[in-house]
Amino acid sequence: MKKRILTGDRPTGKLHIGHYFGSLQNRVKLQDEYEQFILVANVQALTDNFDNPGKVRESILELLCDYYAVGIDFEKSTVFIQSEVKQIHEIFVYLSNFVTVQQISHNPTIKTELAQKGMEESTPLGFFMYPVHQAGDILAVNADLVPVGKDQAPMVESCRDLARKFNDTYGVKVLHEPQALFGVEKNVPGIDGNAKMGKSLNNCIYLSDSEEELKAKVMKVYTDPKRIHATDPGTIEGNVAFVYHDLFNENKEEVEELKKRYMAGTVGDVEVKEKLFVAMNKVLGPIREKRREAEGLKDDLLKRALVGSKKVSEIAEGIVDQMKEAMKIKF
Amino acid sequence: MKKRILTGDRPTGKLHIGHYFGSLQNRVKLQDEYEQFILVANVQALTDNFDNPGKVRESILELLCDYYAVGIDFEKSTVFIQSEVKQIHEIFVYLSNFVTVQQISHNPTIKTELAQKGMEESTPLGFFMYPVHQAGDILAVNADLVPVGKDQAPMVESCRDLARKFNDTYGVKVLHEPQALFGVEKNVPGIDGNAKMGKSLNNCIYLSDSEEELKAKVMKVYTDPKRIHATDPGTIEGNVAFVYHDLFNENKEEVEELKKRYMAGTVGDVEVKEKLFVAMNKVLGPIREKRREAEGLKDDLLKRALVGSKKVSEIAEGIVDQMKEAMKIKF
Repeated sequence: MKKRILTGDRPTGKLHIGHYFGSLQNRVKLQDEYEQFILVANVQALTDNFDNPGKVRESILELLCDYYAVGIDFEKSTVFIQSEVKQIHEIFVYLSNFVTVQQISHNPTIKTELAQKGMEESTPLGFFMYPVHQAGDILAVNADLVPVGKDQAPMVESCRDLARKFNDTYGVKVLHEPQALFGVEKNVPGIDGNAKMGKSLNNCIYLSDSEEELKAKVMKVYTDPKRIHATDPGTIEGNVAFVYHDLFNENKEEVEELKKRYMAGTVGDVEVKEKLFVAMNKVLGPIREKRREAEGLKDDLLKRALVGSKKVSEIAEGIVDQMKEAMKIKF
Repeated sequence: MKKRILTGDRPTGKLHIGHYFGSLQNRVKLQDEYEQFILVANVQALTDNFDNPGKVRESILELLCDYYAVGIDFEKSTVFIQSEVKQIHEIFVYLSNFVTVQQISHNPTIKTELAQKGMEESTPLGFFMYPVHQAGDILAVNADLVPVGKDQAPMVESCRDLARKFNDTYGVKVLHEPQALFGVEKNVPGIDGNAKMGKSLNNCIYLSDSEEELKAKVMKVYTDPKRIHATDPGTIEGNVAFVYHDLFNENKEEVEELKKRYMAGTVGDVEVKEKLFVAMNKVLGPIREKRREAEGLKDDLLKRALVGSKKVSEIAEGIVDQMKEAMKIKF
């Protein structure tokens, strides 16, 4: 039997090339090898966007289009919508007896996020409890594996911990402890040189960008700020144009040659970027094409996600049943 | 149309005469005048009894027997079991965006309870969030009224607040703000003179006590500790025997006469208590009788509570539907 994977996204905007190299590309591979579940975490998205439900709604559809565009096969992968699976909330409520408020408060991820959002003094309960709710997502589908970056490892660990505590308390083996699946993380900097690509930083290349938008953004990509003339020797390190070349350009020889010439001061930024645009467009062009196709399939994609949600509800109901049996509240 | 009431109990033990005068007696009256929903709050009971699910399970059945015994009519009142209504958890999760962790921390009721249970340093999330979860109970049935004691008024106020914030944020009138229904609170002291009757204080007279147990407890009731001989003038104030006489004895003349004689030192404790036993047994005898009957009806009572739960699930699903519509996550 194939092992089960849970992965997913918060629908808070369109996906960009950071998502592509960070997770999407990997999911397309994983869907053949594993039984893959992809969560559209709209309830979690509402925890810090509750006053902007229109954005979350729209982002759900954008997300489904992005999935389709990169090659997520809705038959192979079970895409589902969190708000359609009541059982996740139910599992979460039962898990909440096995973690303390103090443990959550001391969680470094939560601390950082609260600081970033200026929520230290005024933390909505929904946002505060979402790391535990997230364990509900994972346990609801009985996931074996959760693909995560190194910084999210503690999240999987705390899910394992909750599962273990539940099982130990009731002397059962109901909840399945998931393992973190670490990939080769490919960090994608923003076009402005910022280490992270982010909507609020306005430094993203979106999968949905048109060819013209892509071209314009590539021409603005951060290179070596100390280099004034094409004849100045340039630096490769921290040079976003070359980071993108490494990620997108299949012609490795061309990249190596460009790097040499750049360091020697025998190539201008414009040539580097024009070649980068060609390489990026080779990857992003077909995705853009499929995404345009997806726009016309939105209703169908949503329908498929609802079918997926129903499937997940049934799996989760089986887990809830066993949890209730353990807690002696099965009637 | 009749107004809707929500009331209920945490199943953590058998009910005693404190519950009888505090709420049960009132509910028997209310069920004719109102559409009454009675919640068996087993999920909340598990928040601080998660490691003792057997006790909660057993207490559910005891509670149903107690309800039947005092005259709750399962046809007139909708008795339901919290864990059977998933929608409560769902409503709770959506409400959790409208209250902050800091607000809950500063809630005086929660502060007191945490101190009582020694949970200040280590507060299970489930216990911490239960005041918000409680709002979920109330809003799930669209209650107009919540019968409470004065000390629980803030709970209803915070439920109103959550409903208002939700409605205001989405520009809807989906959640119905309940009103507190204050009764004439009758405080029932423990047999040891403690102001409160409580299981852990071991000072309760249970509705399920046998005639012998009742007699034995009545004979031990706290009276006037300064009175040594039957000829000593005694004090009525704080004298539990007379508090109970006032509550149970329908023969008000007899009570007045006993009080006079007690203050004059012309009646012994034994006579006061023997008469008290007769008066209490007159009220508790028929309840005990019906409770014995209920023991044989446990399966049936549970079945009726499950039918009630289904009815509540349907009502709550209607609320969830409207909430989702408001949050633009109705598909």
